[in-house]
Amino acid sequence: MTEPIHQLHPVTMQVHSHRPRQPRATITKTKILEAAARAFADDGYAATSMTDLVAASSSTKGGIYFHFDSKEAIARELVTHWSSALHHAYSATQESPQHSVADIISFFRDLAASVAVSSLARAGLRLAAETGIDGAREAFAYWVDITSLLVAAAIESGELPDNSVTRQLAWNLCAGFFGTVTIIRVVGDPGDFTTRMQNLADVHLSACASAKMS
Amino acid sequence: MTEPIHQLHPVTMQVHSHRPRQPRATITKTKILEAAARAFADDGYAATSMTDLVAASSSTKGGIYFHFDSKEAIARELVTHWSSALHHAYSATQESPQHSVADIISFFRDLAASVAVSSLARAGLRLAAETGIDGAREAFAYWVDITSLLVAAAIESGELPDNSVTRQLAWNLCAGFFGTVTIIRVVGDPGDFTTRMQNLADVHLSACASAKMS
Repeated sequence: MTEPIHQLHPVTMQVHSHRPRQPRATITKTKILEAAARAFADDGYAATSMTDLVAASSSTKGGIYFHFDSKEAIARELVTHWSSALHHAYSATQESPQHSVADIISFFRDLAASVAVSSLARAGLRLAAETGIDGAREAFAYWVDITSLLVAAAIESGELPDNSVTRQLAWNLCAGFFGTVTIIRVVGDPGDFTTRMQNLADVHLSACASAKMS
Repeated sequence: MTEPIHQLHPVTMQVHSHRPRQPRATITKTKILEAAARAFADDGYAATSMTDLVAASSSTKGGIYFHFDSKEAIARELVTHWSSALHHAYSATQESPQHSVADIISFFRDLAASVAVSSLARAGLRLAAETGIDGAREAFAYWVDITSLLVAAAIESGELPDNSVTRQLAWNLCAGFFGTVTIIRVVGDPGDFTTRMQNLADVHLSACASAKMS
């Protein structure tokens, strides 16, 4: 399957290319998660069995069950990777005392970078929209909620007008991001993902600025 | 699961509320497709078995196999419902000799209406982004392709400038539409879906108009 996102150079790197020495158990766990992320992407979550994951991760059934109770536990851990990306990107915006439109842009730029470099975050984002995984819906809702907080802060600071377009901004940015990642996965994309997300944010932010107050 | 889309009143109706008398076989087939659309939405495609579909459609195994060779054949038929919605919405724009920005708006308004009223089209759209269903990727790519044709015609007519924002317009509209349908499915939405899609189209179209030529 074509998944060109991860071949693109991200704007910021959130994953260390030179990892510190890890204990063997952590290495095994990461190997299992990476194999599961690939298998869920290629065959879909429900079609992938624990037996498939044993084969894909070159692990043993015992090795997998040492780390995870079930296939759903692996999916939950991948969703957690996406939630962590959300949390880190949000925390980074909270470091400065002033909150503004720049925070919204850097938040989505960081998320784009996470999705571009991390197959775990990318799988987690996709699984967050699946049915039947505990915590998935919550992770998706958390994304819309923290984006709404960033938008509210930019309205508060006076940088964004409080109109009907701005009130849909958080939804439209998350929808545009999710939809773009999906189209790239399904039909492939010749373009640069992080630049594309930057342009999408620019389009929506200028629409807020130029919309009538209503 | 919350699926508020189908409760909203669509702008245009593409599905007849007063259907002509159908032969029994067609009624059964539609019942199976509707049950499958619900089951795939609730439990996901891969987690739903033919046995589940027998129970959900109050049909018999023989009744289902009379119409469909396999579960994948049902999924393919649902994808076909989405492709038909695309085809009808595109054909409607081709009836007038002049092609313009209004065609792009009416194309997405018609698609929004289809998704709002038809659980079969809605399931087909979702399945088009699944892996492992023959023709799904093609249906998704067809959508982006015909949207690109509409954009190219609007550029040709002089209504849209040929700049970098316009060149991403087809992608951004399809991504925004798919992402919006996904968020509504996952987290629910208090708003009106067809109005929301209209606003999304307006935002992207004005961004094309105001972008620098490049």
